[in-house]
Amino acid sequence: MEENTVLIGSKPVMNYVLAVVTQFNDNDHVILRARGRAISRAVDTAEIVRNSFVQDAEVADIHISTEEVENYNGEKTNVSIIQITLEKSI
Amino acid sequence: MEENTVLIGSKPVMNYVLAVVTQFNDNDHVILRARGRAISRAVDTAEIVRNSFVQDAEVADIHISTEEVENYNGEKTNVSIIQITLEKSI
Repeated sequence: MEENTVLIGSKPVMNYVLAVVTQFNDNDHVILRARGRAISRAVDTAEIVRNSFVQDAEVADIHISTEEVENYNGEKTNVSIIQITLEKSI
Repeated sequence: MEENTVLIGSKPVMNYVLAVVTQFNDNDHVILRARGRAISRAVDTAEIVRNSFVQDAEVADIHISTEEVENYNGEKTNVSIIQITLEKSI
């Protein structure tokens, strides 16, 4: 995991907004990564950062993929992943 | 709204998979559009279509944006939008 990656989970969205804005102090691009139902929160985070906090940040890339995970019954199931790269124009 | 657009809402994901696969019978690209919490379902739909039903389909573009909506109290609130374009290589 790179240093400039923020993993989006189930906490309130502003926690992740703060994490991304903090990463932008040291990096010109930040990667937001989320799985399953947290995907919509990742999109919210990117939009809030871009519209309200780091206005010169742009969406450089969005990548979606699938990962196989084991649930608590030991069954294999697929989960979707999103990876949003935000980039600050210098 | 273009004919080849599938709006993703809160129904089971396979409903939308079927809608996208059907659209691919007449179109070489299909647009999946979702708001708010349905965004993760749009990503699931795209991944299931691509991995299991239309194997020559690729993600041509993913666009995220924000829309202002009025909730039932008449208050304005922002909602995130995703638009995923799947394209079949001919």
